[in-house]
Amino acid sequence: MAKVILTTHRKKRIEKGHPWVFKTEIEKIEGNYSPGDLVEVYDFKGKFLGRGYINPLSQITVRILTRNKDEEIDRNFFKKRIEDAFEYRQKLGFNGSFRLVYGEADFLPALIVDKFEDVFVIQTLALGIEQFKDVIVDILREMFQPRGIYERNDVPVRELEGLPLTKGCLFGNVPEKILIEENGLKLYVDVINGQKTGYFFDQKENRLAIGPFVKGAEVLECFCYTGSFALSAARFGAKKVIAFDSSREAIELARENAALNGFEGIIEFHEGNAFDVLRHFYKSGKKFDVVILDPPAFAKNKQALEGAIRGYKEINLRALKILKPGGFLITSSCSHHVDEDLFWEIIESSAWDAHVTLRVIETRTQAKDHPILAASNETRYLKFFMLQVIK
Amino acid sequence: MAKVILTTHRKKRIEKGHPWVFKTEIEKIEGNYSPGDLVEVYDFKGKFLGRGYINPLSQITVRILTRNKDEEIDRNFFKKRIEDAFEYRQKLGFNGSFRLVYGEADFLPALIVDKFEDVFVIQTLALGIEQFKDVIVDILREMFQPRGIYERNDVPVRELEGLPLTKGCLFGNVPEKILIEENGLKLYVDVINGQKTGYFFDQKENRLAIGPFVKGAEVLECFCYTGSFALSAARFGAKKVIAFDSSREAIELARENAALNGFEGIIEFHEGNAFDVLRHFYKSGKKFDVVILDPPAFAKNKQALEGAIRGYKEINLRALKILKPGGFLITSSCSHHVDEDLFWEIIESSAWDAHVTLRVIETRTQAKDHPILAASNETRYLKFFMLQVIK
Repeated sequence: MAKVILTTHRKKRIEKGHPWVFKTEIEKIEGNYSPGDLVEVYDFKGKFLGRGYINPLSQITVRILTRNKDEEIDRNFFKKRIEDAFEYRQKLGFNGSFRLVYGEADFLPALIVDKFEDVFVIQTLALGIEQFKDVIVDILREMFQPRGIYERNDVPVRELEGLPLTKGCLFGNVPEKILIEENGLKLYVDVINGQKTGYFFDQKENRLAIGPFVKGAEVLECFCYTGSFALSAARFGAKKVIAFDSSREAIELARENAALNGFEGIIEFHEGNAFDVLRHFYKSGKKFDVVILDPPAFAKNKQALEGAIRGYKEINLRALKILKPGGFLITSSCSHHVDEDLFWEIIESSAWDAHVTLRVIETRTQAKDHPILAASNETRYLKFFMLQVIK
Repeated sequence: MAKVILTTHRKKRIEKGHPWVFKTEIEKIEGNYSPGDLVEVYDFKGKFLGRGYINPLSQITVRILTRNKDEEIDRNFFKKRIEDAFEYRQKLGFNGSFRLVYGEADFLPALIVDKFEDVFVIQTLALGIEQFKDVIVDILREMFQPRGIYERNDVPVRELEGLPLTKGCLFGNVPEKILIEENGLKLYVDVINGQKTGYFFDQKENRLAIGPFVKGAEVLECFCYTGSFALSAARFGAKKVIAFDSSREAIELARENAALNGFEGIIEFHEGNAFDVLRHFYKSGKKFDVVILDPPAFAKNKQALEGAIRGYKEINLRALKILKPGGFLITSSCSHHVDEDLFWEIIESSAWDAHVTLRVIETRTQAKDHPILAASNETRYLKFFMLQVIK
């Protein structure tokens, strides 16, 4: 196994528990290896730091799998890690459908496994973990006897690893629509054509948290995708919900979900661009009791940050302007590059421009099946603020 | 009414919604006033900013009550504000016992009102609001027909306003022990001799949030006061809870509370100093599944910050050392001066010293009856982290 020796002058990020070795931190590599191979990582003084997989093409050149010199990276290793991930979620009460493996935070870098009842969707987002895809599928078959396992590797981040974008069935059969349950709601999920793995489990607990704010309310939701926040609002007693998404497919599924839960009379789902929708209601003078914003990541990388800030500012400012006095803005950002402080600055500046006073009622992050690895800020990405507008 | 004219060079804090005018921000005062009087606040160009009460003795010289020039500060004003505060809490599902008025965040600077079923405890923490104490008592009588209203003005912060420390019954009669309900638990509260107003409502939702972590667990709690976290742990299925507080009175009441809920067999309450207790268990080699830390504010002011950091570091480091692998540290800080970033640094440094890897499972703040006024960072004080220890 090749040895990766790190430079002297670098932050002790890895020692603190971060699993990534950047290209710039490598002094030299002793021995031969092929891209994707397992390697050992040592500091400058020859101290063993961990064992992981290497991809010289990637800026994240090594991702550490274990820090225990005696631990072999074999089928047993992956089985143990997936069992640990499952046990953690069972302990916290997750069952049925949830994120089973959340990459770095489950000590399985670049591996995502979402469980939709008896169907599993996986993503192997780095070359090194791609090598173990068959092993992982085999372990999932053994542990869960699934109906099907599907790969959603059609995500651009794979290109940074020189991997092709692809999707398809890896085992059994996977129907286009899977029925799941979340917080007592029934939902269809399209794991084949939907966004990312088909569904966003990370907002599960936040969808519950909106309960106290929506009772009897007129609610507007933008970026509603397949309707989960809107359905939650209806379930918690909203009088009327109008929800928009720019994807026609998402809106069609959202409508099916409304029917499935008997909320057709309460929720209207429309195809529409959030920026236009918010502008339209502002111009028309229509006001809401609650506005929910759950946009996709506007800043997918650092370069996109400036545009993202403008985007977040615009939607939040417009939302504040169409809220009644005493109304609630429920707003989120899933851009890792827009951290909590920055998102907060954007909200404050929106409040200033909208001439409103804000109270922060609750701030939340991602659901517990997306734990945050303290040492890896990249695993901390979801900001979810519930704010009251005081005129 | 005297006019307070502010300096040119100051941050637009007040315009952004912060209710305080510091002594250093005042250019001049036109007209006569007595300490505690109502005054009008203007910027350098003569723009009306608000009306509030003045205390030349205090560094916080004026606290703004209204920004509406036409709004009179009279009985109606206070009634409307208290009604708004009550309506907000009712909307969010609070009933029975909760914080009814949370000072600045309810636009009633320096006024605290806690409701314990039919008994109210108030604090008037500035000279200006003290002037309206009788009016406030009268409004509470009219709105709630309480059994009693008690003042807990025996808090040192009053000294900064030149006010005496005092406590006593302002109306009706107030028994030494009041029975309240929180999250389905019965609790005795001693509003006369207990800490602050007798009880800490701000952790109510956090006591619910520990549910998933304590089932079947051996739990240690330090700074348990009258036992609410320990009782919650027992209610959520903890196998065994050992809880400590340095106050004998608190422990006695905690034991009564355990008996009241039938948890005598599960919870042991002991008088003890948290630092000693944690050291003792570390030396004895005893390990826990969950450790809960809910200390009082170690940093009551900026001067005390260094000592506070050492204190937080020590208890968190020791707690991490006596947790089993996979166990949970549930830790909080209610020092405003230790902000979330700083508290997080302390936790990270404790993890580094304890040689453990941490996962952040949830981060929370104070309960919704303690809303945060976005423009006033002073109203944002409680940090509550639920962390998993990975060895």
